[in-house]
This record gives sequence, C-alpha cells and structure tokens, in this order.
Amino acid sequence: MNTIGKILTLSTFGESHGPAMGGVLDGVPAGVDIDLDALQRFVDRRRPGQTVGASSRGEQDRVEVLSGIWQGKTLGTPIGFIVRNTDARSEDYEPLARCFRPNHADYTWQVKYGIRDPRGGGRASARETVARVVAGGIAMQVLGRLGITIEAVARAADAATLQRVMADGDTLGGIIECVVHGAPAGLGEPVYGKLHARLAAAMMSIPSVHGFEYGDGFEMAAKRGSEVMDTFEKRDDGSIGTATNHSGGIQGGISNGEDIVMRVAFKPVPTLMREVPTVDRDGNPVTLPPRGRHDVCVVPRAVPVVEAMAALVILDNYLIKKTNVL
Amino acid sequence: MNTIGKILTLSTFGESHGPAMGGVLDGVPAGVDIDLDALQRFVDRRRPGQTVGASSRGEQDRVEVLSGIWQGKTLGTPIGFIVRNTDARSEDYEPLARCFRPNHADYTWQVKYGIRDPRGGGRASARETVARVVAGGIAMQVLGRLGITIEAVARAADAATLQRVMADGDTLGGIIECVVHGAPAGLGEPVYGKLHARLAAAMMSIPSVHGFEYGDGFEMAAKRGSEVMDTFEKRDDGSIGTATNHSGGIQGGISNGEDIVMRVAFKPVPTLMREVPTVDRDGNPVTLPPRGRHDVCVVPRAVPVVEAMAALVILDNYLIKKTNVL
Amino acid sequence: MNTIGKILTLSTFGESHGPAMGGVLDGVPAGVDIDLDALQRFVDRRRPGQTVGASSRGEQDRVEVLSGIWQGKTLGTPIGFIVRNTDARSEDYEPLARCFRPNHADYTWQVKYGIRDPRGGGRASARETVARVVAGGIAMQVLGRLGITIEAVARAADAATLQRVMADGDTLGGIIECVVHGAPAGLGEPVYGKLHARLAAAMMSIPSVHGFEYGDGFEMAAKRGSEVMDTFEKRDDGSIGTATNHSGGIQGGISNGEDIVMRVAFKPVPTLMREVPTVDRDGNPVTLPPRGRHDVCVVPRAVPVVEAMAALVILDNYLIKKTNVL
Amino acid sequence: MNTIGKILTLSTFGESHGPAMGGVLDGVPAGVDIDLDALQRFVDRRRPGQTVGASSRGEQDRVEVLSGIWQGKTLGTPIGFIVRNTDARSEDYEPLARCFRPNHADYTWQVKYGIRDPRGGGRASARETVARVVAGGIAMQVLGRLGITIEAVARAADAATLQRVMADGDTLGGIIECVVHGAPAGLGEPVYGKLHARLAAAMMSIPSVHGFEYGDGFEMAAKRGSEVMDTFEKRDDGSIGTATNHSGGIQGGISNGEDIVMRVAFKPVPTLMREVPTVDRDGNPVTLPPRGRHDVCVVPRAVPVVEAMAALVILDNYLIKKTNVL
Repeated sequence: MNTIGKILTLSTFGESHGPAMGGVLDGVPAGVDIDLDALQRFVDRRRPGQTVGASSRGEQDRVEVLSGIWQGKTLGTPIGFIVRNTDARSEDYEPLARCFRPNHADYTWQVKYGIRDPRGGGRASARETVARVVAGGIAMQVLGRLGITIEAVARAADAATLQRVMADGDTLGGIIECVVHGAPAGLGEPVYGKLHARLAAAMMSIPSVHGFEYGDGFEMAAKRGSEVMDTFEKRDDGSIGTATNHSGGIQGGISNGEDIVMRVAFKPVPTLMREVPTVDRDGNPVTLPPRGRHDVCVVPRAVPVVEAMAALVILDNYLIKKTNVL
Repeated sequence: MNTIGKILTLSTFGESHGPAMGGVLDGVPAGVDIDLDALQRFVDRRRPGQTVGASSRGEQDRVEVLSGIWQGKTLGTPIGFIVRNTDARSEDYEPLARCFRPNHADYTWQVKYGIRDPRGGGRASARETVARVVAGGIAMQVLGRLGITIEAVARAADAATLQRVMADGDTLGGIIECVVHGAPAGLGEPVYGKLHARLAAAMMSIPSVHGFEYGDGFEMAAKRGSEVMDTFEKRDDGSIGTATNHSGGIQGGISNGEDIVMRVAFKPVPTLMREVPTVDRDGNPVTLPPRGRHDVCVVPRAVPVVEAMAALVILDNYLIKKTNVL
Repeated sequence: MNTIGKILTLSTFGESHGPAMGGVLDGVPAGVDIDLDALQRFVDRRRPGQTVGASSRGEQDRVEVLSGIWQGKTLGTPIGFIVRNTDARSEDYEPLARCFRPNHADYTWQVKYGIRDPRGGGRASARETVARVVAGGIAMQVLGRLGITIEAVARAADAATLQRVMADGDTLGGIIECVVHGAPAGLGEPVYGKLHARLAAAMMSIPSVHGFEYGDGFEMAAKRGSEVMDTFEKRDDGSIGTATNHSGGIQGGISNGEDIVMRVAFKPVPTLMREVPTVDRDGNPVTLPPRGRHDVCVVPRAVPVVEAMAALVILDNYLIKKTNVL
Repeated sequence: MNTIGKILTLSTFGESHGPAMGGVLDGVPAGVDIDLDALQRFVDRRRPGQTVGASSRGEQDRVEVLSGIWQGKTLGTPIGFIVRNTDARSEDYEPLARCFRPNHADYTWQVKYGIRDPRGGGRASARETVARVVAGGIAMQVLGRLGITIEAVARAADAATLQRVMADGDTLGGIIECVVHGAPAGLGEPVYGKLHARLAAAMMSIPSVHGFEYGDGFEMAAKRGSEVMDTFEKRDDGSIGTATNHSGGIQGGISNGEDIVMRVAFKPVPTLMREVPTVDRDGNPVTLPPRGRHDVCVVPRAVPVVEAMAALVILDNYLIKKTNVL
C-alpha cells in the first residue's frame, strides 16, 4: 500500500514527527554510477524556506544511503535510505489531536484506522514526499545515462500575488507541467498499465493533487478529431515522427518518441493563517487558531516531487520494455 | 500488465477480431447473489448502434460466465467469462496492416512488439472495454448489496451537433462525470494507493482518455484555500459530514463519506470519415481512405465503462479496508 | 490469488463440473512461434485413462486459444484459453454436498467461504491443473527456442503394485523428479524470490503435493559441508562450472548454469474405493460409499503438470533477468 | 524482488558490511500493542555467539524502529526499522573479491549483476535474516493477540558432535520443525496461494534451505491412502476436528484448525575452516585459506528466522481471509 512500481519498486515509511522518513528502492539495474552529492542537491530543491511563502520549518534533509550503492555504483540490490526528522516540534500539534482540520486527512484517517499520529499530520504530511524525491533522484540519474531527462515547471502565482494572499492569511494552488525528453518509443503497457495511467496514478498520489492530464488533456474533450490529429512524417534522419504533439507523446498508452507532456493540478494549501471553524471527534464545534510555519503555496516545492514521480514511472517502464521480446 | 486491482483483480484478454474477448475476475467475496440477466443488460449499454453517430458494428455481446458463480451465487473462486466476437470482418483491415493511422496505437505497438494484429486495432481496439463492463457489472451488483451505487453521465455534444460533425466526416470528444453514492468513509490507502490515484489509473486506462480530476479538480489550482474549504459539521443524526464537497468525497486519499465525484476527459475519435494522410512502415507518405462503421463520438457508449472501472476500484478498496484493523 | 508469476503471469479459473476451465497467460514475449498441435499433444499427456489405475473420466480436453497468438506467432498480448468440461456427471456428487470427505478440501473450503460447489470438488479438483498444463506448454515452447528443456519423471509404484493396491481399494502417492537442462546462470532473485523458493511455491501449489527439495535436498541436513562441496573448475571451453551438483544447479538462490534438479512429493489419492467414515456439516457420523472413476495414483498424470510449473517459473525468471542491468 | 507478502508485505535491504540492515513492514493492522523490549529479546535469539560452534562476530543488533508505532501501538502505517552493522571488518574479505567460494553465491551473483559487494557476502550473507526476525517478531506479537503461537525446534547435532566436526574444520546442516498453534480454519488461498505453498516459498527463501515439507511430507509418497487418512470427528465442544494430523493442519491448501506442522532442511555451512580449492574470475585455480568467525552449524540460530517467516505468512493469510466474504 506504501509501495509503487512493478520492476522498479519504491516502498516508503515515516511519520512527519517520528525519527525519520525513509524508503527502499528496489530493482535499480546493477553497475550504474550514482553521484550522491548530486542526489543531495536534488533533494535540497524541495526543502522549505527557499521561496516566498514557503514554510520556515528548518529540516536539513540529509540523505543517508544505507545499502545498494557501493563505491559509487549500484549493486542491483535494494537501495535503503533514511532522512532524519530534525526539526520536529511536536508540542505545536498537541491541542489538535482531538480536532479534525478541514481539507486535511485527520477525519478520514481517524475513521479508517481508529488511531492516528496527530503530530504534523503524521504520515499524511507532505513531508512524506522527501522519500519520493530521494528515490526519484536516483531514478533520474539512471535515466540520464540513457539520455532521458525530465523537467517540470510550476505555473503558480507570482511573488506579488503570493505576498498579497499571505497577507490575507490565505493560500494558493497551482499547476505543474512536466516534460520527459528523450524517452524512446515503446514505453507503457497497452491496457491497464498504459504509460499515462501509470503517470496519472503516480502524480495523483502526491499530496494535494486534484487533477492530471497529458497532451492536450481536458481541451481534447472540446476539440474535433481533425483538430488534434498528429500527422506522421518522415524526418531527415529517416525516422518516423509526428508533426504536432497533441497526444503528449503517448498513443494507445505507449510512448511514441516525442516529448511526453503532462500537467498536474494542486489544490491550495488547506492550512490557513486564520481562525478556522471545525468540529472535534464528538462533533462539537471548535475553532482552530491561525497556524504558522506552513507554505502559502506548495507548488514550487512540489516541482522536484513531480519530476521524481515521473522518473520512477519512466524508468520502471524502461525496464518492463526489456521483457516484451525474447 | 493486463491485470488491474489488488484484492479484487481483473485480468482480461482478447483481440478485436479474434475469437473472443474475456477475463478473469478474482477476489469477489463468496455467497453474493448475482443476477446474470441484469448483468447482460448492463453490458448491452455499451453496445454500438444505439445512439446517433455510433458504430454500426453489430456485435451481440452475449456474456458467457464460465466459472465462479453457481446457482446464482458467487463461490469466492475466480469468475471466468468470455464474449464472442461475432461480427468481425477482417478483410476490411488488410490494406491497413502496413500503415500507421494517426492518433491510433499502430505505430507505438509496432515499435514495442515488432508485431501486431492489424485487424480492427487488435488488442488496442476499444472493443477491449467489453470485458471491463462485464467485470465492473458484477462489482456493481456486489456494491449494490452494500448500498453503494455508481452513476455516470456523458457531457457530450447534442444530437444536432453530432449530425453536423458527422456530415463533415469529423469526430468529437467529451467528458464523463461519475458519482459514487453511499460509499463509507475510510476507503483508500494513504500514500501511493490513494483512492483518487487508483480511480485515476483506472479511468486513464480506458481508451481515448486524456484527463482525470476529482472534486473541484483543475479549478482548484486557481482557487484560494478559503474558497474550497469543506467545513465539517455535525448532522442531525449525530454523524460528522462536510457542508460543501469541493474535495469530491476524498480527503488525504481516503473517502470521507460524501459523494465521490470525478470527471474523465475523452479525446475525439481518431478515425475520420475523410481521407487522412500518413506514412507506411518505411516512412513513405500514403493516404488512408475514409473509414466507416466507427463512432463519431465514443462518449455515450463509454458511460458504462466509466461506471465499471469505478465499481472495480471501489469494491477493491472496500475489501482492502477490512484488513486495516485486526 | 489465482494468479502466479511476476512478469509472466498466469491467472486461471474453472470448477471441475462447470462449463470450462481456462486461463490468461500474460507477459509472453512477442513474435515467438507457437505450435498449437504440439501444445495439444502436451496437454493430452495429463489426460486420464492412459495408465493403469488412472481415472476413466473421459475428458477430451481440447485447448481453445482465444487470443494472443495470431498466424502462429505470439503477439505480446495475453493468451486467453479455455478447455471445455465435456464429461461432467454432476449427479454423481449430489449426496456428498453435505459431507466432508477426509483429506479433501471440502471442510476447509466450507469454513473459508461458507459456500462451495460440491460437484467433483469444484475448484479444488485436480482438474484445475489442465489450465496449468496449457500455459506451461506454451512456456516450454518459448524456452525451447532458447535451448532450455524440462523433463520430469515419476518415481511411483510399478504396474503390479498399482494393481494390488487397486484391488485393495486403496491408493498410492509418489515422487516426481524434474530437471531443467540448459538454463543459463543468473536466473533467480536473491532474497525472497530465490529461484528455488519460486519453484517450491509453484510445485507446492499442485494438488496433493506435500514436499519439495532441490539438489541433495533433505539429505543435505545430515551431511558435512566437505561432503557436499561443489568445487568450481575451468572447463575445456573456458567456462566455469562445478565438478559435482549437490546444489542442484542453484547457489544463493540463483542458477549457476548446471542442471536444475528438484523433487516433488505427492500424497496418496485421498479418494478410496472403500467405504470411508466421516462426518456431515453438523458433525454427525456418516459413511461415504466407495467411489469410482478416480486415479489410484495421480503421479504419472502429474508429470506434465510438474514440467508446466517449472516452465512457468523458469521463463518468468528469464524475463526478470533482462532487467538486472541497464 | 526483495519483498514478500500480499497484504502484509515486508521489503528489506542491506549488505552484510554496509551501514545497516533494515526493512519496511507494511499492512500491520492499526491499534495493536507492540512491546519493543520483547521484540528486542526475540531478535537477540538469532545473535551469534550464543551456542557451541556459532560465529563470534559481535553484532549488538539493536533494533531501531523509525515509524509506524507510536505510544506503543501500531498506526496502520508502514513500520520502518534498521539494525546497524557495528562489527564489520571489511579488510577480512578483500582478497576474496576475485575468487568464487564454492557453494556460496559469489559466482552466480557475479554472473547475474556483473558487480557484487564482496565484503562478507554482501546482500547474500545470512546477516540479511536479521531484518526478517525484526519483522516476524512484530507479526508474532500481533498473532499472539489472536491466540496464535509459533514454535520451532532445531533437529541438529548435539554439542559433542558439533565439537568434533569443528575440530575437523568441517560444518553441519540440520532440520528445523515448526508448529503453528491456534490458527483458525480457513487460512490459505486455494490454488497458487495455498497456505503450504506460501510457507514453502517463505522458508525456502531463508539462506541455506534445501527442502520443505508439511504434515507427513516426503513420507506421504510411500504411504497408502488408507494409512494417512485424517478422519473427521465431532469433539466434545461440538466442533469438527481430525483424529490424526498426517495433513499437517492444511487440507486443499487451507488450514483446518489443527496444528500446522512443517519441516525445513538446511544444508551444512559452506564456509569451512580448512583450505578450499576453487577458481578465480578467470577460471584459474586458487586455494582459499581457512576461514574463522563462522558458524559450524547455522541451524540453532535459524530457529527464530523460521518462526519469523511462519509468522509473516500466517498473519498475511489471516488478513487476506477477512476479504473472503462481504
């Protein structure tokens, strides 16, 4: 349930204010050079405190690789890793243990398990994504050796808007667009494992995501077939490609060699810097005090998370493809 | 790769113009009454020839259940089923075997496998969805006994527009909205198995789908946190619910007891009733003749497919939830 | 639950006296020649009525391939198949529906599901293995193209002993030894997916199997390390091999290029041709009448089943191995 | 590949002389009391240096739980844990990096991955089992709350024999018998997921295991059906049970409520305290010097490992059983 992938699998663990976040990345091919310093720099990109309106929680997020990489190369064995939680202030959260914050996972978690770690949202915290970024960062390095690169950009509000929203004690959402360059044709399994279905599941599993589309996406629904036809053409190097890319690089669930293009919609951060009315476990009305130390807009920090999830899916499908012919 | 689900699993098979489509639905709880006549009526809803602009291919689509149901009750064993392909006219497709139809799976399939069944798109045909509807129809009956119902509606063009588009030899896409009523709180696994991630993967695996969203979806990205806050309230019966449902019935990846609301975007049918330029396997330009017997808009026929996929995911998560506590 | 394998997966269905047995074999590489006549002959090897003491049930067991193979070649899509049950005589079994036959699955199935198909043991019947043989027969053909062959031999009683046991209305068990020739070194995953762990699970899943060992097996437990040491040596062709094969071709869970050797122990057939005392559902003592149409010893007919299961595991691991390096 | 289980899943990592061994145990039901001191005592049972002939490697094996347990109770989230490797002496192993020790995984690993961590066998070391014992110890505590207990005993040589074998610089194998008491009827999935197939796979995945049997096991193969018939009887409390237990508590792959009895055969330790002839990577003959710090017989230390694997399988099947009926 906390595992994603088929050949390349990632299993993660960790509560926001427990000792550590961590994971096991299994199925990474053997003999690949991994640059742990570059990995740390990639993980640093999701750290708080780097943009306007970002949480001031001061995690260092040092990646500690415990297995699977030796003398700078992958061994083909599972890569276990942890990231310690160093800046947990659990006392902040004590009074919330009996209340259900709106648009958070407090209520659903309580109903599902009958117990929850209320400190910082426990495992439902977006801090969980640090393990995704570690694993995805490794996958990106492997893909890089294959000439495949991944780049996401945030389509969020500008600094002035963020400042204004922050002044109102409010929050914002946004969209991240992610492009995979250099992926070969043939990635993706045709029916339930379509490449875009796998990408959708991976992206929708990121906290706060409410929508996914690829290629022309929802706009496709209002177009005519003749308007979105990606005509094939023979290129100068003799290869076959498409003149346009309405399909977002995926046809019939399988990559066609063009850029793979997708967009992911994030809801606004649910924690406001205002008083918020809600109920406690008994249904009695209570008022939550304004909260601090939270992001006004999580989208910029989510960019490496989106890239990481894309990398995990693409590398997994790259490995699966090896088994399609004898 | 042709399997979906965790406890409730569906494995399907079949090429469009082979002897039969079919599947194995495993993990259905034992002792549940199944009405096979009602199942046949549900499957009939996706048959062609029922709406303006739909394919005139005359499949009867008789469901033949081969196992797992005895004396009207599920046995707890896998439910094997087939639907014969009775109206295959393979000669229609022979000349296409060497060409790549734009926005179809011909090219990607050829690159991936080095071989493909060109008759009617082979396994890449939307005919594959008949097996989803059989399995999903069974899941819906099981859910019905739990008081959970699923209803999807097409948001597609009206008959006049369809007629005009058909006259142009063109095609249309559309959106299907699907609502799950009566699902209890607590369905969905928190991290990679979030309920909406599972729903997204299931919906995105339907042929022609390009986008998925739940609750306020992509609109969430442009809203402020205060605008989409689903405030909790105590209801007259003592239960806790939300005053609004921007979250679409899912919070933190887990159902909260409200209606689960999602939307699925379909691209326009890629087969036009016009001449279409493309290339053959060697990259040489060729012109495809206008095609007949295809849907102008697939969205109305896809409604039961969407319902079926939702049912499979919801029932699977209902079963998983049983294991959350001892 | 009715699925086995990781890349190459087999999902099967069918009750002994339902309309058909069948399965879906997914993950077979594309473009491989399959000889359906040879497949039928392989399946015929497990048919009853061919040896002394075998059941006289007269199934024809015609394999009907429904998908995944076209013009004699695999398509890379799932191979769906069925085998009709033509000789079911359900009236034979009616009186047994309320009784629990000793050493059968009647009691455990009833407790587990609260319902069971009593006709011929339903899905618990060894007739279930016909689907394994169809799928395994396909896998063997694929392995054959790689130079890998599988041969099992029964170590059961001679005809005279069988006749004597049959005259007593009794039954016998036996051992099947299976050898895989020509498998390359490097098959098997080191920890939970050790090659012999996968083989053990596959063999132990065959009805009536009570034990599995590979190489020197249980005898290893009484030996000294110096007695079972497979010394490495350089062969004339420059390759490295072992002088002996106490390890049964697997070291550290991974094949080493020697013959893979395993043994599977079958219990005696539980259905006697004598009166058998037991209880009914309420625990009341009842006496089962002598039964006919059953095997005295199932071991000879199980030989192709053992070969089939070995083939499925070896081919699956052959495909997995492709993903170990980039 | 380094994951075992279906609902209750264990993913482990770690090389013998890397920073730590560890794992993620997911799917443990929420709200169960876990006694971490008792868990540490269970893990201590597999530590070296406690019996005659055991390795003198002085690991402390302190279990560090990083998530999933809070205030003494399971949260329903994955339980991440590590055990640091504190006594690694990597210099011992440097000269071996180019040689293949007989009956070890050196050769097969090298062929499979093209790279290996030669320090102490890397991930192929039996040190890997410490993570199994941590996870299995947690599973045993959960089972204990259900009244299910697991007890294994070593059937190995006595101290005098061990001393004599040690004096010869030789090693021994042995057998472990494991019994599960108090398991309810109904555990196990009928076809490929038979309870004994799952137990076999789990036990065969333990390093050095060469055989598995349950109930009368291999002896069954030489018995008549009438000799191994477990007659049903009504007990004083009104329940139905069997008068004997040749079946080892499992019939048709499903537990019947009797004790579940199995035996696991271990080969002798492959590392001798003698000179051993072998080859290096180029096939040239070399002689390995006598090795120290290794067990003469691993069987006593493997007892908690066998119990742990049994616990993981039984608890997983207990959870799966919850989904068999609505």
